[in-house]
Amino acid sequence: AKRYSITLLPGDGIGPEVISIAKNVLKVAGSLEGIEFLFQEMPMGGAALDLTGVPLPDETLSTAKSSDAVLLGAIGGYKWDKNEKHLKPETGLLKLREGLKVFANLRPATVLQQLVDSSTLKKEVAEGVDLMVVRELTGGIYFGKPRGFSTNENGVEIAYNTEVYAAYEIDRIARVAFETARKRHGKLCSVDKANVLEASMFWRKRVTEIATEYPDVELSHMYVDNAAMQLVRNPKQFDTIVTNNIFGDILSDEASMITGSIGMLPSASLGESGPGLFEPIHGSAPDIAGQDKANPLATVLSAAMLLKYGLGEENAAKRIENAVLDALNRGFRTGDIYSPGNKLVGCKEMGEEVLKSV
Amino acid sequence: AKRYSITLLPGDGIGPEVISIAKNVLKVAGSLEGIEFLFQEMPMGGAALDLTGVPLPDETLSTAKSSDAVLLGAIGGYKWDKNEKHLKPETGLLKLREGLKVFANLRPATVLQQLVDSSTLKKEVAEGVDLMVVRELTGGIYFGKPRGFSTNENGVEIAYNTEVYAAYEIDRIARVAFETARKRHGKLCSVDKANVLEASMFWRKRVTEIATEYPDVELSHMYVDNAAMQLVRNPKQFDTIVTNNIFGDILSDEASMITGSIGMLPSASLGESGPGLFEPIHGSAPDIAGQDKANPLATVLSAAMLLKYGLGEENAAKRIENAVLDALNRGFRTGDIYSPGNKLVGCKEMGEEVLKSV
Ligand SMILES: CC(C)[C@H](C(=O)O)[C@@H](O)C(=O)O
Ligand SMILES: CC(C)[C@H](C(=O)O)[C@@H](O)C(=O)O
Repeated sequence: AKRYSITLLPGDGIGPEVISIAKNVLKVAGSLEGIEFLFQEMPMGGAALDLTGVPLPDETLSTAKSSDAVLLGAIGGYKWDKNEKHLKPETGLLKLREGLKVFANLRPATVLQQLVDSSTLKKEVAEGVDLMVVRELTGGIYFGKPRGFSTNENGVEIAYNTEVYAAYEIDRIARVAFETARKRHGKLCSVDKANVLEASMFWRKRVTEIATEYPDVELSHMYVDNAAMQLVRNPKQFDTIVTNNIFGDILSDEASMITGSIGMLPSASLGESGPGLFEPIHGSAPDIAGQDKANPLATVLSAAMLLKYGLGEENAAKRIENAVLDALNRGFRTGDIYSPGNKLVGCKEMGEEVLKSV
Repeated sequence: AKRYSITLLPGDGIGPEVISIAKNVLKVAGSLEGIEFLFQEMPMGGAALDLTGVPLPDETLSTAKSSDAVLLGAIGGYKWDKNEKHLKPETGLLKLREGLKVFANLRPATVLQQLVDSSTLKKEVAEGVDLMVVRELTGGIYFGKPRGFSTNENGVEIAYNTEVYAAYEIDRIARVAFETARKRHGKLCSVDKANVLEASMFWRKRVTEIATEYPDVELSHMYVDNAAMQLVRNPKQFDTIVTNNIFGDILSDEASMITGSIGMLPSASLGESGPGLFEPIHGSAPDIAGQDKANPLATVLSAAMLLKYGLGEENAAKRIENAVLDALNRGFRTGDIYSPGNKLVGCKEMGEEVLKSV
């Protein structure tokens, strides 16, 4: 039997609930494909802060680094919102991404026919949306230096951050994006603000150069403000989108909400080598934590991405994806995707229904 | 009779067409209220580049500065897209904003009952949306230094920009936003990325301090990625939004597309004193330029904002707003907002219909 070590980071809020479901689904899907998992659960985010005083303990990072893949629930909550920066759960997540060097964040936004009514967009606009945002994840203004607080030459208080990209950072994310587009429908839209920002002009230039390596992929460019509009106007025009860290943060969340089922959407964060990081797109939803109300499917589908992109286990991944569709087809819905005529279930029951179909 | 000098900057693409309509509407509305306008038309954007070699000639800026208000059509087009930065039409616009010191950009996004079907959002989601984005316009990453291209310590090519805010820049835009919210429904949502960026932490801190001057306004904070989602999920939750330059660029365009009638939306850019800058939110639409297809109403409504916010001429402003509603009520629609059962008209005819009702 093949064996993989998986680091589980339940995190905060609904994180533990959805991770426990995804773990069971992984186990069963794995065993049916002759795969065995060694799970190691480690503290992260607010949970780690409460336990150890830091949002990403060294042991959590080293365990994650030495495993084959990392599955994260969610982090953050009101309790830690006012913490100083180095004591925020979010800072732990950024350090984890940095530590694992996972520079490429793949965020699919797909409208399932079963859930088309969950979108706030008109049916004819939402139907058939199937796009992938490839977000640069370890560079740009999230990590750029200098950053901080200071006073300017007139003694006025200021605060600042630096948006910075090196050629190789753009080149490698562009290659991931072109490869992704090639496996999808061959269309890549690079999003920037090259009419204003030097960092974006450089981004556009490098992406255009890398494009010569992918003559079969059709490349276009769009300004970020226009992209934010086009996602609302006609999301179906997009196949694959590539963009920087902060624009990717904004646009991928917008795209996911357009599908109407943010509780359904997984993500994968990949580096050149080493373990990938897999997590649902949604947050920790502290207001429904511990109430068995969370939708576990985004985390279950993140586990499928883990199998596919992290371990190359396509068959086991397909099993999970199909099991999710099957549970939906049989009418099971958590509250966030419920519509009349379906069966309202909690987090655990949804997990059991998925397990039945794996 | 009161007299005001107005600088008209037709700009590029559909700019000249829509400005000529708005000029006529201003004339008539003014004369009915005992107001006389002295119009001075100046080159700007691509048109200025072709004529003078720069996107904002000194004379254009000095004329604008010494007038009572500035009305801009639109700038930009494919022709100048590959220009070097200092020769881009957009650079002219940024210099104009900087030169006029118009730090506060007000961008309403309203769904008119007559046009609710134009939105790609479901009727029940779009209906009744009436929000105002207050965008900081002369600071942040648009203007921050250092910026440019360089090589890092390893000899790698890099490009960078600086997101920077001084205390007084945040304070003054916050005050405009609180004043705006106070005149609307008393709710202000400040949007930032304070879980990651120092510049945003500072933004949040200052806005929270200024809030003590406005105990009657209810202040909330939201992360920009969440705001991009919430605008799609439930735009009606927002009254007034205040945010920085780049987030405001993205969110105001998203909000305007949510209304489905971007051809209808005006904007006002105001400073501490001196002339304000008024412009439609839409771009120069080069593909329909010169074809009498453009929707002039965004520019006509920008003229109304000019009267109201720029000159304090509320009555004349109201005349124009009512005339626009009246033309819509009589069923006149340009192509962008057309729906069956209405009368499809071109730019000029729409202008005439508005004039009839002024
Ligand atoms: C929690 C936060 C730091 C994070 C980000 O901004 O990257 C989140 O919004 C995300 O998109 O994964
Ligand atoms: C044309 C461009 C420089 C401008 C901006 O980014 O501010 C535009 O998108 C706008 O929003 O007015």
